[in-house]
Amino acid sequence: MTYCLAISTRGGLVFGSDSRTNAGPDMLSSHSKMHIFNAGPDRVFVLLAAGNLATTQSIVGRMRQEIEETGKETLRNLSRMKEAARYVSQLGKEESNSARVATATTGVDTSVSLIFGGQIAGGAPGVYMIYSAGNFISESDETPYLQIGESKYGKPILDRIVTRDTSLEDAARCAIVSMDSTIKSNATVGPPIEVLIYERDSFRTDHHIKLDENDTYLRDIKQAWNEALKCAFSSLPLFHWEQRGGVKLRSVPDNPPISIQS
Amino acid sequence: MTYCLAISTRGGLVFGSDSRTNAGPDMLSSHSKMHIFNAGPDRVFVLLAAGNLATTQSIVGRMRQEIEETGKETLRNLSRMKEAARYVSQLGKEESNSARVATATTGVDTSVSLIFGGQIAGGAPGVYMIYSAGNFISESDETPYLQIGESKYGKPILDRIVTRDTSLEDAARCAIVSMDSTIKSNATVGPPIEVLIYERDSFRTDHHIKLDENDTYLRDIKQAWNEALKCAFSSLPLFHWEQRGGVKLRSVPDNPPISIQS
Repeated sequence: MTYCLAISTRGGLVFGSDSRTNAGPDMLSSHSKMHIFNAGPDRVFVLLAAGNLATTQSIVGRMRQEIEETGKETLRNLSRMKEAARYVSQLGKEESNSARVATATTGVDTSVSLIFGGQIAGGAPGVYMIYSAGNFISESDETPYLQIGESKYGKPILDRIVTRDTSLEDAARCAIVSMDSTIKSNATVGPPIEVLIYERDSFRTDHHIKLDENDTYLRDIKQAWNEALKCAFSSLPLFHWEQRGGVKLRSVPDNPPISIQS
Repeated sequence: MTYCLAISTRGGLVFGSDSRTNAGPDMLSSHSKMHIFNAGPDRVFVLLAAGNLATTQSIVGRMRQEIEETGKETLRNLSRMKEAARYVSQLGKEESNSARVATATTGVDTSVSLIFGGQIAGGAPGVYMIYSAGNFISESDETPYLQIGESKYGKPILDRIVTRDTSLEDAARCAIVSMDSTIKSNATVGPPIEVLIYERDSFRTDHHIKLDENDTYLRDIKQAWNEALKCAFSSLPLFHWEQRGGVKLRSVPDNPPISIQS
């Protein structure tokens, strides 16, 4: 499985991905799921992929190859993010279909889900989630993030923290925490964690962080989050029969019914 | 959908359940998913159910009815928790099968997953997760909780907080937080939240709390957790190019590459 996400704030975009690839429990390996495209100085594109690795590699390969080709619409010359998303979704559909035909008798699932984002000069940054069927959606003010793959474990923290006004650094930290929660609860998602912070109108992709299991910052953030959560938990309001300092259930006077039906 | 969980600590058991039942988005209603059985003064049983409501009601109905019957093995006279779990799983399988036969042409999913727990005098408390296939597992020292239904959103907090040594009250609070995170991220899980705290060897089920949306304690705990999480998040270690107090990405001196490949 895979977990990838993208966050879109006023300041720019944050992309995050894990690197675990598995084809059965004894076929675990690491592959980067974050693909950055250099298609010109006035544009930046990032693709995150979940699903069949062979299909993903065909899609990424064709996107890179077509950038070099002339006389057709490619990432190099499209003028809007929405057109670029449509181009990627079309290409994804073609590659998924030809992979499905090629493996028809095997029952292999050749589909992929994609997150595609970036910016083209003259327009705002944009992020799209491209379904395996080929249609796509963008993020919104209400839900400024998109997720693909094993998304449920890491969703609650995004729902609580991320808004359009979150700073890029906080959004990146939230992506790391969301990723770490998922890795802790699901064995098919694993490090290294990659995070790319794209600052609006910078057209640079050099804020690209790769955090492997032993990375000091990742260790620090994991430990700090774990401790902060425990501390947050211990500060929660007590039940009415408890007293801070440890009166236990058995010592409730006469053990009265405590059904709170207020 | 549904979210139910049970936690087993040295002090006893905690059961938690939501109350949203849906058969399509315009068929939402509330049904308690926590069933408590009075089968004698030396025993306590609780059943949590996720899945087909009609099948659940047949199972619960038959369990209650058979308690009254004589001359057969029922919850009233079985002497070990494991035997009681086997009895419930057998009964669950029979009711699921007959519901499947009755609805065969409709394609309705009649299966249920169950959490069954309690204590019989002379033995320790026990909790079991009964799969729709009829087999079952118990919790363990490594994972002292069981979940059924929409379990992923609420799992990370359980993984971080709950151990065998957690107090019953903390386990109950953790169940509420786990439930609240799920409700926040998934529309098919909803209040009221029911929590039952069973103290080992007490053979009483009167610590049974029902928290509806407007309950003061639930509101307090939701708000406190939300604030504590935000506060915990803001205390996380900064990236090396940040300074507490607000140096933003654009102001990084010369905007150097920050790939951390340590």
